Amino acid sequence: MSDLPKSVDITEEGPREGFQIEPGPIPTERKVALIHALSETGLRRIQVASFVNPKMVPGWADAEDVVAGFTPRPGVEYIALWFNPAGLRRTLAFRDRLTVKGSITVSASEAFSQRNLNRDHAGQLEAMRKHVAVHQAEGVPVTRISLMASFGCNFSGDVTVPQALSALADAMALADETGCAIEKISIADSMGWANAAHVERLVGAVRERYPAQRIGLHLHDTRGMAVACAYAGLRLGVREFDAAVGGLGGCPFAAHPGAPGNIATEELVFLCEELGVPTGVDVEALLAASALAEEIVGHRLPSAMLRGGGLGSYRAKARAA
Amino acid sequence: MSDLPKSVDITEEGPREGFQIEPGPIPTERKVALIHALSETGLRRIQVASFVNPKMVPGWADAEDVVAGFTPRPGVEYIALWFNPAGLRRTLAFRDRLTVKGSITVSASEAFSQRNLNRDHAGQLEAMRKHVAVHQAEGVPVTRISLMASFGCNFSGDVTVPQALSALADAMALADETGCAIEKISIADSMGWANAAHVERLVGAVRERYPAQRIGLHLHDTRGMAVACAYAGLRLGVREFDAAVGGLGGCPFAAHPGAPGNIATEELVFLCEELGVPTGVDVEALLAASALAEEIVGHRLPSAMLRGGGLGSYRAKARAA
Repeated sequence: MSDLPKSVDITEEGPREGFQIEPGPIPTERKVALIHALSETGLRRIQVASFVNPKMVPGWADAEDVVAGFTPRPGVEYIALWFNPAGLRRTLAFRDRLTVKGSITVSASEAFSQRNLNRDHAGQLEAMRKHVAVHQAEGVPVTRISLMASFGCNFSGDVTVPQALSALADAMALADETGCAIEKISIADSMGWANAAHVERLVGAVRERYPAQRIGLHLHDTRGMAVACAYAGLRLGVREFDAAVGGLGGCPFAAHPGAPGNIATEELVFLCEELGVPTGVDVEALLAASALAEEIVGHRLPSAMLRGGGLGSYRAKARAA
Repeated sequence: MSDLPKSVDITEEGPREGFQIEPGPIPTERKVALIHALSETGLRRIQVASFVNPKMVPGWADAEDVVAGFTPRPGVEYIALWFNPAGLRRTLAFRDRLTVKGSITVSASEAFSQRNLNRDHAGQLEAMRKHVAVHQAEGVPVTRISLMASFGCNFSGDVTVPQALSALADAMALADETGCAIEKISIADSMGWANAAHVERLVGAVRERYPAQRIGLHLHDTRGMAVACAYAGLRLGVREFDAAVGGLGGCPFAAHPGAPGNIATEELVFLCEELGVPTGVDVEALLAASALAEEIVGHRLPSAMLRGGGLGSYRAKARAA
């Protein structure tokens, strides 16, 4: 009936997402401490900083200091986020410690493109063409397509599977034209509109259209549906997920103060491990990192598991009895 | 592939669960106000009080006042909880406004039976035999079997499907012997051990063994898995669920301060409705009741949706645009 993957690969986005949205200021060394704690959990990819305009995102004014300040752990890939040539150049200054690969980003919702990316879909494709050229000029491979608002949009409502496929096809065509070897299609539920059945339909359609591509899911837990959506993805063999420890990050939309952001990494890891799908991540170490994240931001994080804990200690006690 | 039910029937347990666990005191009229708000949402069954020993559960010392104090809404079934003959008699005093049906309760974990029910499994079966006799003497039908700790136990670890089936078979045999016409088997994840695959296995096995019985799921969201577990149940055609508005109730185990309790009703309703399975419940009215519950208990409730809100207003705006 189901097609659970043999293992799951998680990109931890908590530091970048979390410290971007917190009213802060959060000391650089605390950000570094969280990156170190996450590096000890078994996570293999951690997004550690955002090289964005400090006037726009003051929480990441210290991106350089954070990236220079942490001690990379062998076997862990550290990545950053950027949106423009200046951000790319700042990232490339840390090519020794960051894995630098580019993305083509498009929105499945025209309205979200206009409001969030400040360009309509056609304009965004044009901008991405330049974006790819800048990367190629720097020798940075563009390997990923990121499809935003894949399920719905606060400005235009539900997004249908054909709408999402159409925006994705445009991005794939651009990748072809510009000679990008795409490795992964990341399907993002940017505003928390997904449900498990919609995930099945869209992932199924993308897999059928692009059978050679890896598919990733970037889920938001705005309405408590993220774990069920991840389960639906797992059933279809999806093996790449983004997540944020503790549910760090919150919802970037002002209408939802305090709403959960990305799926909490510990809940995703727990889901996978309980289903028998290895993640390589120690959920107890991750819960400790989550508690540290909560201490750093100084307010309650949305992860249920951070309150409820894991089952490891109960199982150990039961075995010993 | 899936066997989603044509509709879903929810038993709202928020008032009973919530006011039982809150350090309170919560004024009787506030409890009544929540029952009234819930009665307006489209919910068809609401558990309004617990007739338990006020020395043990001071939060329900006013059970009589609450039950006497609310105005029943036609079409809504109001129920209560009791554990012993005294509790049953207190309940029966309100036979005009409460639907009174009994349950046979057993635990799939021997250790949980000993710690939570104060009897081993054999002792619990004996106690249930007397319990049934007391009900029958009062003319109260015993129509439900409630299987506690169906997936795992904080005291003895994982509970296997054969263990759960064995305890259930004993309860079914007792029902047969005593002439109870069982209508529903309620599978409870009392301590938040379930995952979606385990739900599939256990529900599948129970359905195969007792094809004529309705199956209900009582899920706890201790580790954030409840919505995914509900989805797994829905895929197998389960159409009865218990839930608590806002996730009221918390976890009764001291190890988990602040951990979520029952699945939040609004998240269950949202899940079903987004999957196209009608619940009869207006999610926006339910979110208003959830906000009232949060105001009444005076602290943040665990429901993600209470922060993130529904999609109705976005869809309405999108249609109008």
